[in-house]
Amino acid sequence: MYAAGDVRVETVPDPRILEPTDAIVRVVRACVCGSDLHPYHSLKPRTEGRPMGHELIGVIEDLGTEVTGLRKGDFVITPFTYSDNTCAFCREGLHTSCVHGGGWGSVETGGLQAEYARIPQASGTLVAVPGVDEHSDLLPSLLTLSDVYLTGYHAAVMGRVEQGKTVTVIGDGAVGLSAVLASRQLGAERIILMGRHTSRTDLGREFGATDVVAERGDEGIEKVKELTGGEGSHVVLEAVGHMPAYEQAYGIVRPGGVISRVGVPQYQDAPVGWASLFGHNVTLTGGVAPVRAYLEQAIPQVLDGTITPGKVFDRSVRIDDVPDAYRAMDDREALKVMIDFG
Amino acid sequence: MYAAGDVRVETVPDPRILEPTDAIVRVVRACVCGSDLHPYHSLKPRTEGRPMGHELIGVIEDLGTEVTGLRKGDFVITPFTYSDNTCAFCREGLHTSCVHGGGWGSVETGGLQAEYARIPQASGTLVAVPGVDEHSDLLPSLLTLSDVYLTGYHAAVMGRVEQGKTVTVIGDGAVGLSAVLASRQLGAERIILMGRHTSRTDLGREFGATDVVAERGDEGIEKVKELTGGEGSHVVLEAVGHMPAYEQAYGIVRPGGVISRVGVPQYQDAPVGWASLFGHNVTLTGGVAPVRAYLEQAIPQVLDGTITPGKVFDRSVRIDDVPDAYRAMDDREALKVMIDFG
Repeated sequence: MYAAGDVRVETVPDPRILEPTDAIVRVVRACVCGSDLHPYHSLKPRTEGRPMGHELIGVIEDLGTEVTGLRKGDFVITPFTYSDNTCAFCREGLHTSCVHGGGWGSVETGGLQAEYARIPQASGTLVAVPGVDEHSDLLPSLLTLSDVYLTGYHAAVMGRVEQGKTVTVIGDGAVGLSAVLASRQLGAERIILMGRHTSRTDLGREFGATDVVAERGDEGIEKVKELTGGEGSHVVLEAVGHMPAYEQAYGIVRPGGVISRVGVPQYQDAPVGWASLFGHNVTLTGGVAPVRAYLEQAIPQVLDGTITPGKVFDRSVRIDDVPDAYRAMDDREALKVMIDFG
Repeated sequence: MYAAGDVRVETVPDPRILEPTDAIVRVVRACVCGSDLHPYHSLKPRTEGRPMGHELIGVIEDLGTEVTGLRKGDFVITPFTYSDNTCAFCREGLHTSCVHGGGWGSVETGGLQAEYARIPQASGTLVAVPGVDEHSDLLPSLLTLSDVYLTGYHAAVMGRVEQGKTVTVIGDGAVGLSAVLASRQLGAERIILMGRHTSRTDLGREFGATDVVAERGDEGIEKVKELTGGEGSHVVLEAVGHMPAYEQAYGIVRPGGVISRVGVPQYQDAPVGWASLFGHNVTLTGGVAPVRAYLEQAIPQVLDGTITPGKVFDRSVRIDDVPDAYRAMDDREALKVMIDFG
């Protein structure tokens, strides 16, 4: 990406092992993330393009000498940040704060919307999926474990979703819909989805939403209050990242409830005073999802068909059409676009 | 209080039963709260004084016809908000959001820095302490259960303080010191107290603080980082309410950690974006303390000497000297002042 709206497909040198802890993966599927749309709106023009993409599934092509537990040819999932899986933070399940961790999307690390990728800290980062190859029907759902589904899952975990709780999800993008599916997995019976795009909220219903609220702002807040007997929602999962979504969140949360954010906040300051959070003992939580912590338990759920989060992909493109994938997602013509290297 | 800095003692009509659910309490001890200092700094001049005070222990003088479970002559503690103790929020321990609840300090409800007080929702609000009378040595500690100790306790509960956690308390006022004592009760081994007043931090050490950091701002952040091996504090209890304390809180909290606020925030907006909270999965929690929820378990701890939170009182005045009590607390000459009606 060279500037807002300016995505180009370029031929660059193949990545190679730089550290003995690296792996090289041949990408089978990658995709465009809702968070990629933030620079698509705001990136200042630059002479050196910014490599894009942080989600992939693929096959190991090469391994550094210190990588253990993986073999060439393994079919693997990459969480959207790399991590050693051994440091104090990783051991607590907070791989996004790994002391040897980092992310893709810089000139140094490259982007994962690419045919090949260098994966640092491969032993800690990559998770092999035995019995799956690049012709599997499960590829879309496995790809969501790289980010989107498990980001929604993180929202629900941090929001302490459980049986008996009313959960409201703000945002009918792929992360919001994933948060609905994850809330259902965690036992929520009542799941209110706030979104205006019928095709998306229909998938939300399929994923477990019991109510859909199309209204926004004060009207949306009023509607959720009505649906919850005037009390508000125990848990609010905020999957957008813009201030109006945050304002909606504290408007509909029940006293003593939790707002869990996974939409990357496009603001620095926000209301947290007496009227918004403090006076009602509302907890604000969430953050960048440590996908790696949830990967191993989610893979069997995809393999046995318990969850089918891959339904969020409603379009597939070849690498040359990636610029149009950004456009289609930005125009809300597509919910989430997969990049097929097969 | 008629304006910032203008506290007067006035003779007003005795309160009387207005609702069948009311009680009238003869006040034995009351006190001045750190939060009373906020209007002491900022209250705009008004023609009708604002009744002050929300903490008391005393003896029941009169009861409305619908009050159950209490008798005239009972020695009681009043939490700083009243509540029915039966609604959905009370049943969950969130008495501060009681649907029939409220607080003192308005012309309608009166203030508790007074010889007599009307207590709405008396059955749900007042807790009798059998075997204690107005000559007990335990009065100071029992009085802290009206607000200050259990507000510190709420901070620790919401911050999920437990064994193995490093807790940092910001603020060496009476609530901060109470938060230290509460953290110790909840099993924290490492308790860092940030405060600059040696007489107060000494009491903090007596209450269980293992380290004291006198530095503030970036220097204070650096110091706590050093003490925690560069990682930061699992839990930060913010007992001040001003922006610099909040900034300190997110500066010292460990990734994945919790900031729990009980200092009434004197700001509306605060940093909650990528750099402050989101990127590190930091949880922001806390709020106005539902003291009533914790009262019954704390009373025996005071009666058997497990805790002596009453040590936060370092001065006692008669009612006529209350204006000077405000001044002394504001000048940090006194930590917390008790009003003795005996």
